[in-house]
Amino acid sequence: MADTIFTRIIKGEIPSHKVYEDAHVFAFLDIAPLSPGHTLVVPKEPAATLDALSDEASAAIGRVLPRICRAVMKETGATAYNILQNNGAEAHQAVFHVHFHVIPKHGASGLGIGWKPQRLDAAAGRDLADRLAAAIGS
Amino acid sequence: MADTIFTRIIKGEIPSHKVYEDAHVFAFLDIAPLSPGHTLVVPKEPAATLDALSDEASAAIGRVLPRICRAVMKETGATAYNILQNNGAEAHQAVFHVHFHVIPKHGASGLGIGWKPQRLDAAAGRDLADRLAAAIGS
Repeated sequence: MADTIFTRIIKGEIPSHKVYEDAHVFAFLDIAPLSPGHTLVVPKEPAATLDALSDEASAAIGRVLPRICRAVMKETGATAYNILQNNGAEAHQAVFHVHFHVIPKHGASGLGIGWKPQRLDAAAGRDLADRLAAAIGS
Repeated sequence: MADTIFTRIIKGEIPSHKVYEDAHVFAFLDIAPLSPGHTLVVPKEPAATLDALSDEASAAIGRVLPRICRAVMKETGATAYNILQNNGAEAHQAVFHVHFHVIPKHGASGLGIGWKPQRLDAAAGRDLADRLAAAIGS
């Protein structure tokens, strides 16, 4: 995978407002925040999208997310927030190195969400769930 | 914490289209999907929001997310998707048991994202990053 700006931030070649680092994870403030405290949590392992990330690197991010969320709440006073992780340009991904956004909701600022639910047909749902279960199991 | 509908789904008291289960994690199709394949990944540990979830339960979700994403891509044909996890009614949370949405992007269907970035002031960013780092470290 080609180096992205995040690889260079992790290496310290580009400065960042770092908030956390361990053997697998690097976290820093987004320089174009949707709200104060908007933080990016990235794996050191380079992977463009989450489906390409190793189980171990993804688990390491999962492990530290609650701690980072508590700190963001404490230091910004936010009581609500979103975790967002985009995969593919169509899904709003701009830097092709996995990153989890932690986005505090402060009144009108924060993540805007468009939600147009459909209805799951029971038979189609059962068929899809069976296929997914088989794919995950394999 | 009061039981939510997700606790009852995990216990099997309410039927669901299950796609995955292990000691810590339960995943099933959203019955009001934003797009075909919209899947919910929840910890068995009851916690209303991610900041209240144990490191271990959150790591277990992180560990299985790439596998679930690969299966959703394979079985729906989606090449782009979003992971979304909402905390607090203000941030669009409706069921108060932690859940990660895996939402395939199929053309216009899927997650709508509103993005109004601000500019991070360097001095304020440094100060906030230092406070976050201290809070995470403690």
